[in-house]
Amino acid sequence: MAETPTLIPHTRLTEFITRALIAMKMPKDRADITAGLMVKTDLRGVDSHGIDMLPRYHELWRQGFVVMEAEPVLARDAAATALYDGAKGLGHYVSTLAMRLAIDKARTFGVGIVTVRNSGHFGAAANYSMMALEHGMLGLATTNSPYVAMVPTFGREPKLSTNPISFAAPAGRHAPFVLDMATTTVAAGKLRIASRWKKPIPAGWALDEDGQPTTDPDIAMKKRFMSPLGGSRELGGHKGYGLGMMVDILSGVLPGATYGDLFQRTGRYEQKKQDVGHCFVAIDPERFRPLEDFKHDMDDMFDSVKSTSPAEGQTRVYVAGEPEAESEKRRTREGIPINATLMGLVNDLAKGLGIPALG
Amino acid sequence: MAETPTLIPHTRLTEFITRALIAMKMPKDRADITAGLMVKTDLRGVDSHGIDMLPRYHELWRQGFVVMEAEPVLARDAAATALYDGAKGLGHYVSTLAMRLAIDKARTFGVGIVTVRNSGHFGAAANYSMMALEHGMLGLATTNSPYVAMVPTFGREPKLSTNPISFAAPAGRHAPFVLDMATTTVAAGKLRIASRWKKPIPAGWALDEDGQPTTDPDIAMKKRFMSPLGGSRELGGHKGYGLGMMVDILSGVLPGATYGDLFQRTGRYEQKKQDVGHCFVAIDPERFRPLEDFKHDMDDMFDSVKSTSPAEGQTRVYVAGEPEAESEKRRTREGIPINATLMGLVNDLAKGLGIPALG
Repeated sequence: MAETPTLIPHTRLTEFITRALIAMKMPKDRADITAGLMVKTDLRGVDSHGIDMLPRYHELWRQGFVVMEAEPVLARDAAATALYDGAKGLGHYVSTLAMRLAIDKARTFGVGIVTVRNSGHFGAAANYSMMALEHGMLGLATTNSPYVAMVPTFGREPKLSTNPISFAAPAGRHAPFVLDMATTTVAAGKLRIASRWKKPIPAGWALDEDGQPTTDPDIAMKKRFMSPLGGSRELGGHKGYGLGMMVDILSGVLPGATYGDLFQRTGRYEQKKQDVGHCFVAIDPERFRPLEDFKHDMDDMFDSVKSTSPAEGQTRVYVAGEPEAESEKRRTREGIPINATLMGLVNDLAKGLGIPALG
Repeated sequence: MAETPTLIPHTRLTEFITRALIAMKMPKDRADITAGLMVKTDLRGVDSHGIDMLPRYHELWRQGFVVMEAEPVLARDAAATALYDGAKGLGHYVSTLAMRLAIDKARTFGVGIVTVRNSGHFGAAANYSMMALEHGMLGLATTNSPYVAMVPTFGREPKLSTNPISFAAPAGRHAPFVLDMATTTVAAGKLRIASRWKKPIPAGWALDEDGQPTTDPDIAMKKRFMSPLGGSRELGGHKGYGLGMMVDILSGVLPGATYGDLFQRTGRYEQKKQDVGHCFVAIDPERFRPLEDFKHDMDDMFDSVKSTSPAEGQTRVYVAGEPEAESEKRRTREGIPINATLMGLVNDLAKGLGIPALG
């Protein structure tokens, strides 16, 4: 049975994560950035990619898959493009540098694209696409992962990661458009959360070892045989599979990072070489039309879709990013819910690192 | 009952479409480009976006929604971005100009993005993303349409078009990666083809007027209440809806073209103002790593996914673009199948335009 979660103020959560990262040898300025992004993710209600990842980051660090004091290197930089080497660090810091550079390039050239190789998990993709918003720009962020999960259409083994894509664009009166989606039916973190809360999962999220749909979150989490968005071929699963490949090409093949099942197939696991890849794009809408006109049409489009008559049993039609913006307001006020399992995990972690417990 | 189709050589089909477009007042050089792209689409087996569209183009021209002799205008051009005004023409010609310009910009800046407003239907999105391939580049193409089809998640009325996205990337030994997908479960053309061939459609493609799934292709075609990729919210339909919005932002809001249900909502139908928008991006992979290394990894990734053990009852795992490349070889040799209904339609059209029948 799931227990009532404890509500933790976001400032306290930020402080806790910062301390934990510093105790793992991450320099303070980077720990601030990383903890800030992780807590922002929790505030936005994306429970799978914030504090919930901390035990995993700790494990990866202890096992030598991630170097917390890594110094990213700008490996290539020309006109509207650049490439960072993440030097085996966690992904949040190098991704922040990369998206900042993409935005600078978009200011100069109208569009900028910066890729990253040799990185680690970067948290929620939306954290980086959304960086473009405060500059009145459109942002795109993608990442891959060395850990395969998606079973290609017509296949029975996983060959790709959940390869998420995030796209953000500014609006005027309304909250900005922020899409952040795994190209599998659900993100892997959703399986982990379901397993943590002991909740059965819907058929269509994951497969068992016989390739049959399973509703057991522990089997799903253990096997990670996940369906591409769309599900069966007839209902468009080949599109989710195609989008997953597109994200792997942009995030992995383009910068020269890992892709597909390379990590499993070529001894990179034994070498502890995750080599995660990311891709960041910023676009300046002012190169095409005045920003105010762009925002006017965004608001008008949002008004139209939000006024759609709801289906039977529904009350509202949303725009991507709207539920997360509402969560951010609510959780900033009320705190971030941490369940007992996760609280136990992070308190154990704190003890091991010699820092105060979270709660 | 569907009848046996007639096989027409692609050269004869090209000649027929070129003549039909010229008879509709399209200048010869543009008719050559447009017919070439339409027939390439048929060769690649994408039956919904080639010759099958000709009767629709004819209808739009007769009704005054499309001006075949339109002269596209380069409305903005700076650094890595540009904007074309399609001057109410059919989309193929201006889209070819726009993608060529995006490729030129990518050669200079590493990435180029060119949008188009005030355009018409441009056929298959893959025709433009694939233009990047012969330059060793990655290509992206998106379009919207004034005709709504996609019902937003939790809603019961269509508010967006099928808003397709195409992405192409070069490989070495293998056929290039070419994804071309509507962000609805299926493209609207698939409903038209099913209706033409009198084939029932799978539940999950479209809804009837009560918002319930229908298998009747004529009801589906008439109502065009289409599900976003993923279907229900639980199985990720909000992702298909989000992708559809992303495509509308890039194709419509960014260049200042139509978006959402603007055409229905604001008297644009009465003004015969389709104002279709497109977005084209080219990326030069050599800015990140040597092209040969990029192609090597593409081939290696393709080898891996193609070697996936097939699911029960399946024989092969494909890469996006592979079935289309195989169709192109086969149909170049054997001809393009035209069914009796379509043959009747295009022959009637030919008669009206005073050109020889197709067959």
